[in-house]
Amino acid sequence: MVDSVNTKRKLQIGMIGGGQGAFIGEIHRLAIALCGDYALVAGAFSSNADVSRSCGEQLQLSADRVYSNYQNMLTQEAARPKSDRLDLIVIVTPNYLHYQIACLALENGFHVMCEKPLTTTVEEARSLQALVTDKAKRFTLTHTYLGYPLVSQARKMVARGEFGRIRKVMVEYHQGWLSRNEEAAGNQQACWRTDPTRSGISGCIGDIGTHAHNLAEYVVGQQVVEVCADLSTFVPGRKLDDDGAALFRMSKGAKGVLSASQVCAGIENGLKISVFGEEGSCEWRQEDPNSLVVRKLGRPASIYRSGSDQEYLYPEVQASFRTPSGHPEGFLEALANLYRTLAVQIWQDFGISPEQQLVPVCPDIEMGVRGMVFIEAMVTSSNEGGSWVPLG
Amino acid sequence: MVDSVNTKRKLQIGMIGGGQGAFIGEIHRLAIALCGDYALVAGAFSSNADVSRSCGEQLQLSADRVYSNYQNMLTQEAARPKSDRLDLIVIVTPNYLHYQIACLALENGFHVMCEKPLTTTVEEARSLQALVTDKAKRFTLTHTYLGYPLVSQARKMVARGEFGRIRKVMVEYHQGWLSRNEEAAGNQQACWRTDPTRSGISGCIGDIGTHAHNLAEYVVGQQVVEVCADLSTFVPGRKLDDDGAALFRMSKGAKGVLSASQVCAGIENGLKISVFGEEGSCEWRQEDPNSLVVRKLGRPASIYRSGSDQEYLYPEVQASFRTPSGHPEGFLEALANLYRTLAVQIWQDFGISPEQQLVPVCPDIEMGVRGMVFIEAMVTSSNEGGSWVPLG
Amino acid sequence: MVDSVNTKRKLQIGMIGGGQGAFIGEIHRLAIALCGDYALVAGAFSSNADVSRSCGEQLQLSADRVYSNYQNMLTQEAARPKSDRLDLIVIVTPNYLHYQIACLALENGFHVMCEKPLTTTVEEARSLQALVTDKAKRFTLTHTYLGYPLVSQARKMVARGEFGRIRKVMVEYHQGWLSRNEEAAGNQQACWRTDPTRSGISGCIGDIGTHAHNLAEYVVGQQVVEVCADLSTFVPGRKLDDDGAALFRMSKGAKGVLSASQVCAGIENGLKISVFGEEGSCEWRQEDPNSLVVRKLGRPASIYRSGSDQEYLYPEVQASFRTPSGHPEGFLEALANLYRTLAVQIWQDFGISPEQQLVPVCPDIEMGVRGMVFIEAMVTSSNEGGSWVPLG
Amino acid sequence: MVDSVNTKRKLQIGMIGGGQGAFIGEIHRLAIALCGDYALVAGAFSSNADVSRSCGEQLQLSADRVYSNYQNMLTQEAARPKSDRLDLIVIVTPNYLHYQIACLALENGFHVMCEKPLTTTVEEARSLQALVTDKAKRFTLTHTYLGYPLVSQARKMVARGEFGRIRKVMVEYHQGWLSRNEEAAGNQQACWRTDPTRSGISGCIGDIGTHAHNLAEYVVGQQVVEVCADLSTFVPGRKLDDDGAALFRMSKGAKGVLSASQVCAGIENGLKISVFGEEGSCEWRQEDPNSLVVRKLGRPASIYRSGSDQEYLYPEVQASFRTPSGHPEGFLEALANLYRTLAVQIWQDFGISPEQQLVPVCPDIEMGVRGMVFIEAMVTSSNEGGSWVPLG
Repeated sequence: MVDSVNTKRKLQIGMIGGGQGAFIGEIHRLAIALCGDYALVAGAFSSNADVSRSCGEQLQLSADRVYSNYQNMLTQEAARPKSDRLDLIVIVTPNYLHYQIACLALENGFHVMCEKPLTTTVEEARSLQALVTDKAKRFTLTHTYLGYPLVSQARKMVARGEFGRIRKVMVEYHQGWLSRNEEAAGNQQACWRTDPTRSGISGCIGDIGTHAHNLAEYVVGQQVVEVCADLSTFVPGRKLDDDGAALFRMSKGAKGVLSASQVCAGIENGLKISVFGEEGSCEWRQEDPNSLVVRKLGRPASIYRSGSDQEYLYPEVQASFRTPSGHPEGFLEALANLYRTLAVQIWQDFGISPEQQLVPVCPDIEMGVRGMVFIEAMVTSSNEGGSWVPLG
Repeated sequence: MVDSVNTKRKLQIGMIGGGQGAFIGEIHRLAIALCGDYALVAGAFSSNADVSRSCGEQLQLSADRVYSNYQNMLTQEAARPKSDRLDLIVIVTPNYLHYQIACLALENGFHVMCEKPLTTTVEEARSLQALVTDKAKRFTLTHTYLGYPLVSQARKMVARGEFGRIRKVMVEYHQGWLSRNEEAAGNQQACWRTDPTRSGISGCIGDIGTHAHNLAEYVVGQQVVEVCADLSTFVPGRKLDDDGAALFRMSKGAKGVLSASQVCAGIENGLKISVFGEEGSCEWRQEDPNSLVVRKLGRPASIYRSGSDQEYLYPEVQASFRTPSGHPEGFLEALANLYRTLAVQIWQDFGISPEQQLVPVCPDIEMGVRGMVFIEAMVTSSNEGGSWVPLG
Repeated sequence: MVDSVNTKRKLQIGMIGGGQGAFIGEIHRLAIALCGDYALVAGAFSSNADVSRSCGEQLQLSADRVYSNYQNMLTQEAARPKSDRLDLIVIVTPNYLHYQIACLALENGFHVMCEKPLTTTVEEARSLQALVTDKAKRFTLTHTYLGYPLVSQARKMVARGEFGRIRKVMVEYHQGWLSRNEEAAGNQQACWRTDPTRSGISGCIGDIGTHAHNLAEYVVGQQVVEVCADLSTFVPGRKLDDDGAALFRMSKGAKGVLSASQVCAGIENGLKISVFGEEGSCEWRQEDPNSLVVRKLGRPASIYRSGSDQEYLYPEVQASFRTPSGHPEGFLEALANLYRTLAVQIWQDFGISPEQQLVPVCPDIEMGVRGMVFIEAMVTSSNEGGSWVPLG
Repeated sequence: MVDSVNTKRKLQIGMIGGGQGAFIGEIHRLAIALCGDYALVAGAFSSNADVSRSCGEQLQLSADRVYSNYQNMLTQEAARPKSDRLDLIVIVTPNYLHYQIACLALENGFHVMCEKPLTTTVEEARSLQALVTDKAKRFTLTHTYLGYPLVSQARKMVARGEFGRIRKVMVEYHQGWLSRNEEAAGNQQACWRTDPTRSGISGCIGDIGTHAHNLAEYVVGQQVVEVCADLSTFVPGRKLDDDGAALFRMSKGAKGVLSASQVCAGIENGLKISVFGEEGSCEWRQEDPNSLVVRKLGRPASIYRSGSDQEYLYPEVQASFRTPSGHPEGFLEALANLYRTLAVQIWQDFGISPEQQLVPVCPDIEMGVRGMVFIEAMVTSSNEGGSWVPLG
């Protein structure tokens, strides 16, 4: 069962973004609470000073650690004595701000947990990657779905050859919430996601296609090396793609199909993956995350299930659950698992190792760069009318 | 509830192919029995005279109507007095024989029920189409999956605008039975399906990809006008594709993703389709054919279910079931529904209409031609490295 | 794969009941057609001579073998030369007629296939049992659900000790179609089922509770020896129970819970069973009959699936399917399997054995008697306010 | 979306029990963290002083607020200044200690959150109830499953008459983890649960049967007034029931079936309920807690789904989710919802109301008493051989 890493103290978090109406901020705060390794002690929750202050009050933070902009927070916090300064900056702003904030955080010596996609261009991403290396800081990108322990069970089964050489991958991330012109109706979430100045060159692919790409690479253990894509904008007046699909090829010969859409009317948050190998296959659906369907040639399908007491799972997967079998875990636990791995890494930098080993799930800057390259390749391929485009 | 069309007499069937070991022949005989409108009275079940005779004996046919080759059957049966000659020829041979047999059947004045794919080339398909028109005969291609009544429910819901304009289609037909080199192991079904001389230019796409294509066109009510494909041969030594995927575009603007594979280890017969429109969507899986998931924006998903007493279904869909709700129907009923529609058509040519109207499900020669064009476009696109290829 | 037993001739069937509007007659005719071992050649389809004649015409029977009452049919058919007389009488009338017709059929030397419940009283049932023994005839009761091959797979797994000693059984048969007063609305099916003069002492328990009881005994391989019941009549004005539940105990120590209801609004035909043993358990649902969930302590759940090619099933179970895996089979196939086993038995009386062995599923007169005893015990227990009542 | 109640300060919790190896303590701590309204500041985690101290250290509590027994904790904490004393005592010890601890907590003026079952006898329960009233304190019993928002959706739909008058209820709580003699193998969880001195007169019924009973009463909105039960001890050597089933009757005429078992080999945590009314029914399974199946006569079944943005849910149900639709929530969120309602109640005692209204889910002392009465009636009925026993 997941315990917190260390009993000496909580790691100190400062959050940027995540004020009122920004649901992702609250999600992170809940995951931080579940994780147990951190305390949220500072924040620049909004570029609106009132909103930021009000959010800080609601969270019962010291008024002097609630900031009206991230620049102030990063520089002033960096100036605090080492024993009382932040360990980690959590970035939950719209996409277009990720880059500049992350750079400033790293430059001020902080570890970073950043919402995805990493940046709005590949150049920024690579530049950020260089900075992470240069500053020798930890950087986690919130590909939250990797935090579901059964995803790691699938990855390990593939890696250990349980299914033989992998031939085919189907990955799909469908949502329906942008089926209508929500941005015209003033839905905040919709507004920035469909605005090129805030989301970059892609809407749907950038927002959720990257999750599908990331999940495929993580589970299969191969990189996507080439895509052939067709992006669409179905809702009239929308400026970015709201749907896309691609054929792809992976580094060790697997082939794949990816579909991502935010106009699949009636679908909630349908991320799923199927991986087919020579000897068997597996299938996982985010909306039923506590089950993993495993199939072997000539055998009945098996349903692997979550649970801290589930003895047929790999020990570190088993250890990544907070509750015994039959007690469903969900999205918040998945995100808490990312926080927990990051905490382990941070403590390791202090020379302290955890007693208990969980699945180390830390989508890193490298994954972030790959995501940006993927977005760019998808857009290029689609613009070129479906040519096969290599991922740099 | 499905009743047989006419009480005066049974329509007379002669079968070509379908001898011992050819499972599809027995499947047809069971569907014919279920349908109730026909009697199987003649056959050329194998090119091996002994096999054909033995099969005829087992089926209790008159010895004089069991033939050692189809040519003899077609010409001798055509010579019988009109009141005692065959009404319908059922062709259940390997793909490469469909064309020549169908031509001869039509030329001798018979209606035809033919297994798919129609022929091995587009040229043959078009030539056959011309002959069907010329001879004014009925021609049904066994796209059996169209015979499931809930597939027609979906089609009608789409046609009536229940989901708004259709934007996206996902169709997938996955099987796992060719995951290993079954043809090398002597599996008869595998041998002809993977042999270019008997199956034509494609393996998996020709065998099952065509079902996926056909299902998409039927449900969406649009034609696939362009494909961008990537075919694969994963099993070493195999001569034809055993897997393929494509992006596609339809005639009224829907876009789609199609995946077909016979190396999806552990999957049985996984044909499924999801159709997404502006206002809602639906989803159907062949392995659970008695359910249709219907989703509307802002509403809970609904599960439409099979049954002759299911009042919320369209009346003609309701009428296409043989049992009341909660009594599962399966593949044989679906095929029997194709036979039944064909019987209605044949009787209509005699000026007789059925009392009761079912969903008229008769995949016709036009669909067969389209299937051949689809196969050719898929192979061309893949060979050209993924260019978008129009469907003639 | 299921083939028909014998190539020499079809066994001759005469049907009693099953005229227009009686859906169960058509269901039997479809199953007979699917089975392939029989020909329906005679019938007394209704006590209304016109209805019977019209039904015979529709079925294309010789007018001289269509009768206006069953007495005539049984005596006149018995008088035909042995080579041209009926082999089997199928009784599909309302419950209250089963006894007298079955007796007359047996006395005239015919084998019998009879709809359930067997009779309206235990006395009749025992008397019929004596007659079956005395006349040495075959007698099958249509507990159709036993005809699903995966039910036999479950039974065999239990019998071979795959789950250890069985401790607990949950069996449930819920329907919703009598939630309202359908009999007052003139629904024919509802009328006789809720009428004590035609259905005997029980409505729901007699109609479907007996299926649940029978399924439990068949799968567990133990007899129910004691019940403690509570029957209800929920719809005002109804004269017989429309719902009931019981605790029960079985002959080798298993305990159970049974629920049967026809007022479970929204449920179609929800028969299901779960069997729990020391080492594992299994679960089967009639509405998804092609799957059997198998659980073993400490292992992931397995989904056993139907199919003539499903190698992990017992060979005779595998042989009881008509289609390969992934091609759903349904209720009609289940009933056809009962017909097929009966055909094997009848031919065995002629000294002829089938080439191929299927699961022998023949719910016999003994099961019929047990069903009647069960009904009586349920009613008694409920009337006595829930005392434990032994099954005679 | 669930926010914490008040921004002024956290309510202060002291925990009794829940030291190392006691998984339920950690579960509560995680739920408390998720809830956000509380801070855990004191504890008597074990009767072993070392264990308690070590646990307190791990949780980073002040050493002076970690106690070696609950008596010390309650009296010393009660002596602290009002502004710095505990608000709430959480009791997560084995069953037999609940009563004495709860009494002492109440007498010292604390609100109480107590694990279930409430006590080991009905007398204790009633006496505790009197004390709660007398002291005018808040008391919540951890019937955690009521905390799932869709359970409250179901309750409200029933209460508003969406299904008409309720006729029948099926409730089942099956687990498999005590299929073998785990107590002999030294499993701590198994030891106290199967020990009459620590668990009282019942094992399985007391441990999980009470959850099933409670869920039925909560959803149906009627009380169980009579039971007819059969309890079993299947594992040799075990001293308390490990399985039981009952027929029951409710206060406004609904009838029910309840099954609870801890020897259902292979089942994880299978709590489920189906409620059938005149016009429709609903079904909920704890292992898939984000779905509620709703059926209405003559309509397709609907799947109601969780989500803070799910507009077809009752507003207060919608408000009880922490994540938008498609992001699974689980057991910890359910328990956090109980904590949250209790926090609202406690603040209300201070004259402060929350801004936002969630479903008020607070299983109270009354429910606890009813649970004890239920256990006693079940044991009595079973001992008397299945007589109908009224619930006091």
